[in-house]
Amino acid sequence: MTFEFDAHTAVRSAGDDADGRYAADLDRGWVVGGGVNGGYLLALIGTALRETFPKKPDPLAVSAYYLSAATPGPATVAVDVRREGGTVATASAELRQAGAQGEETRIAALATYGDLDRLGDDVRTTAEEPVLPPPDACVANTFAPQEILDLAPMMGRFDMRFHPDHVGWAVGQPSGRGEIAAWFRLADGREPDPISLLMVVDALPPVTFDLGMMGWAPTLELTAHVRAKPAPGWLKVRHATRNLAGGMFEEDCEVWDSAGRLVAQSRQLARQPRPVG
Amino acid sequence: MTFEFDAHTAVRSAGDDADGRYAADLDRGWVVGGGVNGGYLLALIGTALRETFPKKPDPLAVSAYYLSAATPGPATVAVDVRREGGTVATASAELRQAGAQGEETRIAALATYGDLDRLGDDVRTTAEEPVLPPPDACVANTFAPQEILDLAPMMGRFDMRFHPDHVGWAVGQPSGRGEIAAWFRLADGREPDPISLLMVVDALPPVTFDLGMMGWAPTLELTAHVRAKPAPGWLKVRHATRNLAGGMFEEDCEVWDSAGRLVAQSRQLARQPRPVG
Repeated sequence: MTFEFDAHTAVRSAGDDADGRYAADLDRGWVVGGGVNGGYLLALIGTALRETFPKKPDPLAVSAYYLSAATPGPATVAVDVRREGGTVATASAELRQAGAQGEETRIAALATYGDLDRLGDDVRTTAEEPVLPPPDACVANTFAPQEILDLAPMMGRFDMRFHPDHVGWAVGQPSGRGEIAAWFRLADGREPDPISLLMVVDALPPVTFDLGMMGWAPTLELTAHVRAKPAPGWLKVRHATRNLAGGMFEEDCEVWDSAGRLVAQSRQLARQPRPVG
Repeated sequence: MTFEFDAHTAVRSAGDDADGRYAADLDRGWVVGGGVNGGYLLALIGTALRETFPKKPDPLAVSAYYLSAATPGPATVAVDVRREGGTVATASAELRQAGAQGEETRIAALATYGDLDRLGDDVRTTAEEPVLPPPDACVANTFAPQEILDLAPMMGRFDMRFHPDHVGWAVGQPSGRGEIAAWFRLADGREPDPISLLMVVDALPPVTFDLGMMGWAPTLELTAHVRAKPAPGWLKVRHATRNLAGGMFEEDCEVWDSAGRLVAQSRQLARQPRPVG
């Protein structure tokens, strides 16, 4: 059986192996607002890079600059290896689609890959795991109103259970703290891995919902660090912002696995949503 | 009068304007351990990008992947504009030097530039400014032992005043909290600006000093967000880490200006220093 996440992020070599070009199809199941979810696109780029570095299959750091909105349909990932040697390898990668102006770049990225199994076991994490009530005591994304589901078909990919204190925005009562935490797993039961974590860091609603700013927040830049292979089971995902200024905000994301380990961290710079209505 | 920071980060167009190549000289005043300080190199790349985008002169987000150690002497910055339009512009940039294998890439970077003067005035920062005793009640970097100054000539570029509680490592008593905060200004009085902030985020000693791990921590990746133009005067710089694991750690940096504004944030992924002795 192929899980839908793997089918949707599949890439195939486009012609001669050596030229570093991969073909993909952006699935419309990941549409959100006016584009395709940035985390899904990052995981798709991440898959092309994993194909490029079979002996260094894990993303350690990935930085993506979002240049234009992607649309469902054919796309190309062009990989350019910048250095490979020792325990890590670095490449640039661009996601491109045919557009009105010819081939247009949707995302420009840089990434360093390695082998998470070959890292040491020394763990000294002082960050604290988010505290969430059990999943069944949280608010499921399946309770989202139909208008949200219509706007964000990607909600159908996930089973998310929000902290009850972090969903006041859904009923017009945002907390104002700038924090959203939730349990997370893929709806079809596919277990998390280093590639899927690249999607998970951009899967929750924008943290600005919790500041009372509804509307989607376009990402300018997102950098993710994958720090360990996640254990199977529910993930805990926490988004927070501490500096909304000048029409932009940073969104920090932490992903914790079922073994209580901080497996991924990300930060993105996004545009503040324009007030609605 | 030309301040030394401006002289050291100067770039000149290398040949035909349109080809996006800039020549530079890496000054040996920025040597630290076995290489040239990564923040200085980031500011130098940032200067080439400012030349590329005269109407969008300010770095909003810059991500740098450090591929090999730079050495003092000639270098080239190759800029490739990936998108320019609307209020922001994005380019890739590489810092290269002649090496044993021909031209070698030291740093591969992506950056989005804009005009910080054209952003809105809306500021809702919940992050808290670091609390530091007055500069004269802090520990100046000029008190560093000669062996440190010999290892890190770049210390001569700065006037840094460390929080007295954050320099226990200098006398063999690190706090173990993973935090270092200091007042910061350039030694010759040059005031901070958006470009110099790219250097400031990587100027302090590695935060691992405060965990009792002496030795330099090679950066794999660093992303900086410049969020506002800094006011003149002392900056406050705070480094912290919360997740040291698998031989790597993240180092978060905040830079606050004399007006109490959070003007830059950065995060880097670095290799844990090897134990000394």
